[in-house]
Amino acid sequence: MAIVIIRQDGKASQWKALLEKKSQDILIYDFGEEHPKETITMALVWQHPKGSLKAYPNLKCVASMGAGVDFILADSDVSKNIMITRVVDPMLANDMSEFVIACIFSYLKNLPFYGQQELQQRWTRMKYLRKKDVTIGVLGLGELGSTLAMDLQNMGFQVQGWANSKKEAIQTFVGEKELPQFLASTSILICLLPLTKETKNILNKEFLSKLPKGAFVINVARGGHLVEKDLLDLVNSGHLSGASLDVFTEEPLPKDHPFWGHPKIQITPHIASVSSPSSIVPQILENYSRLTKGQPMINEVSVSKGY
Amino acid sequence: MAIVIIRQDGKASQWKALLEKKSQDILIYDFGEEHPKETITMALVWQHPKGSLKAYPNLKCVASMGAGVDFILADSDVSKNIMITRVVDPMLANDMSEFVIACIFSYLKNLPFYGQQELQQRWTRMKYLRKKDVTIGVLGLGELGSTLAMDLQNMGFQVQGWANSKKEAIQTFVGEKELPQFLASTSILICLLPLTKETKNILNKEFLSKLPKGAFVINVARGGHLVEKDLLDLVNSGHLSGASLDVFTEEPLPKDHPFWGHPKIQITPHIASVSSPSSIVPQILENYSRLTKGQPMINEVSVSKGY
Repeated sequence: MAIVIIRQDGKASQWKALLEKKSQDILIYDFGEEHPKETITMALVWQHPKGSLKAYPNLKCVASMGAGVDFILADSDVSKNIMITRVVDPMLANDMSEFVIACIFSYLKNLPFYGQQELQQRWTRMKYLRKKDVTIGVLGLGELGSTLAMDLQNMGFQVQGWANSKKEAIQTFVGEKELPQFLASTSILICLLPLTKETKNILNKEFLSKLPKGAFVINVARGGHLVEKDLLDLVNSGHLSGASLDVFTEEPLPKDHPFWGHPKIQITPHIASVSSPSSIVPQILENYSRLTKGQPMINEVSVSKGY
Repeated sequence: MAIVIIRQDGKASQWKALLEKKSQDILIYDFGEEHPKETITMALVWQHPKGSLKAYPNLKCVASMGAGVDFILADSDVSKNIMITRVVDPMLANDMSEFVIACIFSYLKNLPFYGQQELQQRWTRMKYLRKKDVTIGVLGLGELGSTLAMDLQNMGFQVQGWANSKKEAIQTFVGEKELPQFLASTSILICLLPLTKETKNILNKEFLSKLPKGAFVINVARGGHLVEKDLLDLVNSGHLSGASLDVFTEEPLPKDHPFWGHPKIQITPHIASVSSPSSIVPQILENYSRLTKGQPMINEVSVSKGY
């Protein structure tokens, strides 16, 4: 029994070293090195190349090295009898919350505008918004969404969420039926949904048009949630006042994409929250130990729900 | 008895209309219009031109239309028997706090860097900081400073203040003696001091060098607090990681000032908090009524303390 790490960002060997430091007697391979494929029972993956899992006939578990599993669910080589797990990282939820708070305040106080005008040596004032002027709508109240919603609420923001079921302590709108009401009363929309069949392309023209005029959109979930052309049209037409986007259909964002340099669209290179090894390593080793003993895994993903 | 409004931003007539709407039987003049100088007992001023107060032989009170009175104290035409008042606006303290929070989060998450790289179509990641990585040091714990310090503390930031006396609920360093210890343990320094003889040019090379390497400076008080050349040198040498500045020695910031477009210095055109008429008008009318009745004024400034 052994583990293979598959990721294309050049960090597989780093992760291997980290895991080896914390484990004893576990065989761990970087997918780039020579290794006996039939011994692999667990694959640790992050945006693995298509077809790379075919090589392992005895695979029992594919473990995402982050919170998202959309790239695993999209891989037809992962059969139904292979378990899928993900990382639930409390630090990740905190980081995500801090990043979104940064985007919200930056928007309220027009900091992107001032950043641009500084380069043109211009001294123009724009009216700012206050916390009390806006209602924050959080799409998705899982670990990340509810941490953010609670943090914002504690800061004095008016906050509401949209989810599959009512959540304690957060004003929740449930399901398709209550969606129009949720959108109509949201001035800053934050997407923290998991990417599933149901939520792919959810941020489209019809959906975003239900926001009030002047609303602002923050997508920190997955590029696949957003129909980029629709957002662009709604910003350019003035229905939306702008957007902060950390994720894109194609990353890095292709050259000549209309988002680059758009004065009302802020781009960050998928950095809202980065999983920290100190959170991930113990969860992976715990699950590997459970796998070898045939015990139930932690943070196993429901394939039918998609998260 | 009458009031004159003296300000050079073109808003004197607007303010006159606002005050007249809320008052009855009070004579109010815009300094640009013809008016009987000897009837004036109260001057409402904001950055009034030098010498403009000389014209009023019966002046009893000069009222700042904002929180600052430095430009009144610097006016030698304001003799000792003329009272000086200022505006204490709870909304102003809230707005200032929100603006500084925006600057702090923007810095932690490298948003100015990403704003600049978006214009160059670059996709580079920078390591972000977390709330827990920094200690915020607030210079001055008056109305504005203590509101900010409490807000930050409630959000989970490590906060300390520097003031003339210990404040409840905020870790306070007092006076010159405890200043080095305060600075050495501050990673984000925020200036909210009043501008007085003692605090003019306080943010100079010697002072800022006592901050740890990599510290960040936010000045939202007055341009006169900061020796701009010293800050620039310390940012360029790498001792400071950058600065957010809302106030300057000369405003608007002169063309070709080295701050324009500096990648590590964020400039905003004195917009951190703008006094709202709904807060200011009642305070001014109340003081005018007290002045006519010979009663003690509210928010009178101590000339010896300078605030």
